[in-house]
Amino acid sequence: MSTTAPLGVAVIGTGLMGADHVRRIDEVISGARVAAVADPDGDRAAEVAARIEDCAVHTDPHAALAAPGVGAVLIASPGPAHEETLLAALERDLPVLCEKPLTPDAASALRVLAAEQKLGHRRVQVGFMRRYDAEYRRLARLLADRELGRPLMLHCRHRNLSVHPYFTNDMVINDSVSHEFDAARWLLGQEIAAVRVYRPTPASVTETGLSDPQFVVFETTGGVVVDVEIFVNGGFGYQVQAEAVCEHGTARIGEAHGLLTNTAGRWGGEIAPDFLTRFADAYDREVQEWADAARRGEVTGPGAWDGYAAVAACAAGIEAQRTGRRVPVEMAERPAFYGR
Amino acid sequence: MSTTAPLGVAVIGTGLMGADHVRRIDEVISGARVAAVADPDGDRAAEVAARIEDCAVHTDPHAALAAPGVGAVLIASPGPAHEETLLAALERDLPVLCEKPLTPDAASALRVLAAEQKLGHRRVQVGFMRRYDAEYRRLARLLADRELGRPLMLHCRHRNLSVHPYFTNDMVINDSVSHEFDAARWLLGQEIAAVRVYRPTPASVTETGLSDPQFVVFETTGGVVVDVEIFVNGGFGYQVQAEAVCEHGTARIGEAHGLLTNTAGRWGGEIAPDFLTRFADAYDREVQEWADAARRGEVTGPGAWDGYAAVAACAAGIEAQRTGRRVPVEMAERPAFYGR
Amino acid sequence: MSTTAPLGVAVIGTGLMGADHVRRIDEVISGARVAAVADPDGDRAAEVAARIEDCAVHTDPHAALAAPGVGAVLIASPGPAHEETLLAALERDLPVLCEKPLTPDAASALRVLAAEQKLGHRRVQVGFMRRYDAEYRRLARLLADRELGRPLMLHCRHRNLSVHPYFTNDMVINDSVSHEFDAARWLLGQEIAAVRVYRPTPASVTETGLSDPQFVVFETTGGVVVDVEIFVNGGFGYQVQAEAVCEHGTARIGEAHGLLTNTAGRWGGEIAPDFLTRFADAYDREVQEWADAARRGEVTGPGAWDGYAAVAACAAGIEAQRTGRRVPVEMAERPAFYGR
Amino acid sequence: MSTTAPLGVAVIGTGLMGADHVRRIDEVISGARVAAVADPDGDRAAEVAARIEDCAVHTDPHAALAAPGVGAVLIASPGPAHEETLLAALERDLPVLCEKPLTPDAASALRVLAAEQKLGHRRVQVGFMRRYDAEYRRLARLLADRELGRPLMLHCRHRNLSVHPYFTNDMVINDSVSHEFDAARWLLGQEIAAVRVYRPTPASVTETGLSDPQFVVFETTGGVVVDVEIFVNGGFGYQVQAEAVCEHGTARIGEAHGLLTNTAGRWGGEIAPDFLTRFADAYDREVQEWADAARRGEVTGPGAWDGYAAVAACAAGIEAQRTGRRVPVEMAERPAFYGR
Repeated sequence: MSTTAPLGVAVIGTGLMGADHVRRIDEVISGARVAAVADPDGDRAAEVAARIEDCAVHTDPHAALAAPGVGAVLIASPGPAHEETLLAALERDLPVLCEKPLTPDAASALRVLAAEQKLGHRRVQVGFMRRYDAEYRRLARLLADRELGRPLMLHCRHRNLSVHPYFTNDMVINDSVSHEFDAARWLLGQEIAAVRVYRPTPASVTETGLSDPQFVVFETTGGVVVDVEIFVNGGFGYQVQAEAVCEHGTARIGEAHGLLTNTAGRWGGEIAPDFLTRFADAYDREVQEWADAARRGEVTGPGAWDGYAAVAACAAGIEAQRTGRRVPVEMAERPAFYGR
Repeated sequence: MSTTAPLGVAVIGTGLMGADHVRRIDEVISGARVAAVADPDGDRAAEVAARIEDCAVHTDPHAALAAPGVGAVLIASPGPAHEETLLAALERDLPVLCEKPLTPDAASALRVLAAEQKLGHRRVQVGFMRRYDAEYRRLARLLADRELGRPLMLHCRHRNLSVHPYFTNDMVINDSVSHEFDAARWLLGQEIAAVRVYRPTPASVTETGLSDPQFVVFETTGGVVVDVEIFVNGGFGYQVQAEAVCEHGTARIGEAHGLLTNTAGRWGGEIAPDFLTRFADAYDREVQEWADAARRGEVTGPGAWDGYAAVAACAAGIEAQRTGRRVPVEMAERPAFYGR
Repeated sequence: MSTTAPLGVAVIGTGLMGADHVRRIDEVISGARVAAVADPDGDRAAEVAARIEDCAVHTDPHAALAAPGVGAVLIASPGPAHEETLLAALERDLPVLCEKPLTPDAASALRVLAAEQKLGHRRVQVGFMRRYDAEYRRLARLLADRELGRPLMLHCRHRNLSVHPYFTNDMVINDSVSHEFDAARWLLGQEIAAVRVYRPTPASVTETGLSDPQFVVFETTGGVVVDVEIFVNGGFGYQVQAEAVCEHGTARIGEAHGLLTNTAGRWGGEIAPDFLTRFADAYDREVQEWADAARRGEVTGPGAWDGYAAVAACAAGIEAQRTGRRVPVEMAERPAFYGR
Repeated sequence: MSTTAPLGVAVIGTGLMGADHVRRIDEVISGARVAAVADPDGDRAAEVAARIEDCAVHTDPHAALAAPGVGAVLIASPGPAHEETLLAALERDLPVLCEKPLTPDAASALRVLAAEQKLGHRRVQVGFMRRYDAEYRRLARLLADRELGRPLMLHCRHRNLSVHPYFTNDMVINDSVSHEFDAARWLLGQEIAAVRVYRPTPASVTETGLSDPQFVVFETTGGVVVDVEIFVNGGFGYQVQAEAVCEHGTARIGEAHGLLTNTAGRWGGEIAPDFLTRFADAYDREVQEWADAARRGEVTGPGAWDGYAAVAACAAGIEAQRTGRRVPVEMAERPAFYGR
């Protein structure tokens, strides 16, 4: 790895997530450098790039992709802007790490898949960072090795301290439950077949009509039942847990860690405030492994098909949330190109 | 309490559960004695009574109820035999502790309620022993005091090491989930409104057609969503857990306790093998508190209405299990007699 | 057990502990009744006995021992009064449950042992209730069965919320660490050989000169090293923990149990406020097993020798605390009468 | 940081630890590269360097320090070889990260301190990687901020799966307990005043005379009592725990994390097999932060004085282990140069 020059990355979008990835590539991971940034807000882009040597600054993503030294693209712009950048990157045959969602809807996701297939080799990775979390990986290995037999059910908890006031019911599915859709597909090696959403009497209803918490139950093509508590304004901390119930036992991740205290009649530990804290190592590992693979010309992480599958499940989830019904997930045939 | 003679109890049914209650009254609790036993298998009854002083032995429950010194009845016979004994006990105005189910169906349960109302005061307590478990009581207090705000969801796990080979799908609801039906009603102070049952690809299907595990989701009249994993042949131990998700936090009971070991690359503790081990103290406390109340002429535990409510929820649960649909729970109007 | 009359118990001393034992015998345990009470404060004795049927009230312990129906004695008076009552009870050949300490010093303890040996059978049990705690019993069984090989070290924590202002350095050893002296003897099956006391810079020094916390290290005759953190004004709750380090692993008891909550950035559980809460079941079990054994004419719990051994270890502990030195424990030869 | 060239590091010693640091600098951390390696075993050095671009290979440390592009030194050779390399690095004014021990004895450590002071600025960092562990850092912050008041005691556990057969009693102190010496100094901000070592009846005595486990109690200059269980052939896994007892509560780190399973009557998690697994992230962070600071011309981690303090405490520890006595730690006056 060290015998070649570092991978020059164009980072598209320099908001919270994009700026954090710029810092990560610059300071944390090895074998990569930020060669260009792009953001419609040119000042923000310039500020993020200020301390990086030889980093081009653009407002137009296409210009950033064409900048000198760019050999890969990290897309951290808003979802509706993804398709255009993805297609441009594929046109240039550049490796892409695209923050989720791949695109906002199934039709556009299928166009990206078609472009990648036409190119003839895989170039797109989607930012499902849980696949890089040490605990999730341990659970995935346990399930893959059938250490406790076949998985039968998966119980998930996904709790945030709070979200911004314009968070909507659609975002509960697209931004939050989409992580469980991908995690379930990856952990179980099965697609999602149908979704139902329960809406208990809410803790709060916001101005956007957001009903919180919700309880999502989905079934997989292999007959596993997955339930997800999603509570975006839980108010006590950020908690992501998963328990797989298998033939011969259960396995759970996401319990609290670290410092335990005894004080004032209570024992216990801290709950992380947010996902950047909880999954900090996972983000580092994700970008490092992507950059390493990109330099070898490979995609080893979740690909465009995984991005599409999450988009399709979210569409069913939103309909299920709206109707209270069990909504089957409709998916195109999986191209051989995307193997298994 | 000690200024009156001990309560003379007739124990009806001397199988596993009945024999254990005889031992409990004889050896563990104070203020009560076994005055009579009855079992169709007279030899079994005689054997159980052998070491008890002044204990009458009968094959007919009615004879046991009429035996000298009998002032209360504990019913541990099979469910279909409950109604007759309950009505006979009420006729004699005797306090009753009746193992669940109150009766096998809603119609017979309503007949028992009618008889008790006609008597004019409450005499029937149903054996929902979880209400006497220290952890459940702590959770109930937390919810009643709104320590974490209103409850929104309740996640339950109910796992057995194994069950006998003639266990059926109906028994999953009637014998197992009925505990969660009662616990939810008691913890939340709400009735059960509708039930749905998910049946994942099973770990095993037995000769009786039992599909195991199952996942039951029910809604309460107050809009709380309750989910129950019921896994009767889980194979690893007996585990009962509950987590209440409230407005300002969550509260969970049923984690493993006691001895923690570090050995051979693993740390952890033991899982109880069965409910008699896990709930031993709860059974003791249940019978003690029932006997104490009976001597004061009161019923302080779960009454006939609670037994009826569990029967009604089970009927909906079985239909939900069979059809895969959401089945509303149908209940009679709650008589003022049963207060709240 | 139920074929004989209940054991009539004279309770000597009706302070906090004695009154609680009166309640326990009256309301909780089976097979025993309070036949007499004695306390120098006759009003206090009369109040405690008020609701008990056929209970004699005395200010003189000797009179209580001679009261009608008395067949056993429970001593809960202050330590300096123990010897006289113990000798009187042995003279009458009555089974005794004596709260610790057996007596305040080794010489008087040896006189009690002599009297019991002269009587020719064991009658005295000492109130080391930890031997009746479910977790301690599980640990004892693990050690006795060598499940993890031979024990090598024992780490103990003993923390109180707070103690009364006239608690002294001597009481740290006599009232607190004496529990660990007995627990170590019982868990390990070895006597205590020498004691050393470390006094870190204290959290507080009280008017009595109490230095808190302290750290006691003692060695057993089998070469096991035992350390005890004793922190009597810890301020956060009551916590008793023990970890045995064995050849092939470690085993720990006393972690917090019960209700776990997530709230306000913290997860965790409650710490019991005091020993009556933490060891409530142990006290019940202790008195029940003592009464059962007494009715069979046996002593099955910790006997007079165990009481003497704790007294001897405490004497060494207090000297170690005063001098900062390693102080050997001096004990008489163990009479064959006390077996092993 | 990215505006300058990467830091060229000479890695001295290419055994297990040295080779792992070469991999870390090459693959994991950013802003640094391996510019040279040195090992008396030239083949081993060449093998380690084979895949690194522009990496000089030497058998003589001095030659490696003089190699083109070398701007810093990482010393991973055996302890007796440290002094010579340290002095050579200081002569060249190079930043050094030196694996512990700084040197094998206090006299040589003082010579290194003298050389660094003569140089006039700090250049030496010692490899106490626990200071970079996320949990230790959280505990350190809690203590520094007096969140629970002043620290009074520190209970430490240090358990290995096993060590090689030629591990000695001296190594118990120098290689194992030295970590707790440094951790205590760092966590408490106090020096170590005196050491005592208890040697329980061992689980095993090896051919080297190693007695295992041992129990080390030391006092700090601020009157804190620290105890360390050190068990190098514990046989069940690698476990490092610490509990600080403070005025208003206690805080503990090092409990097991990650995947919890329920299976076959047991619940629990895995214990890491070794320190490379447990402290993998700490090693990465240590080297990254050292390289970052080195490029700024600073030393931010544990310095030469910390290395000397550990050497001095170890010398007392070995004498305490040999004699069974309390041995005061003798230290030179702390030069103002090393601040606090």
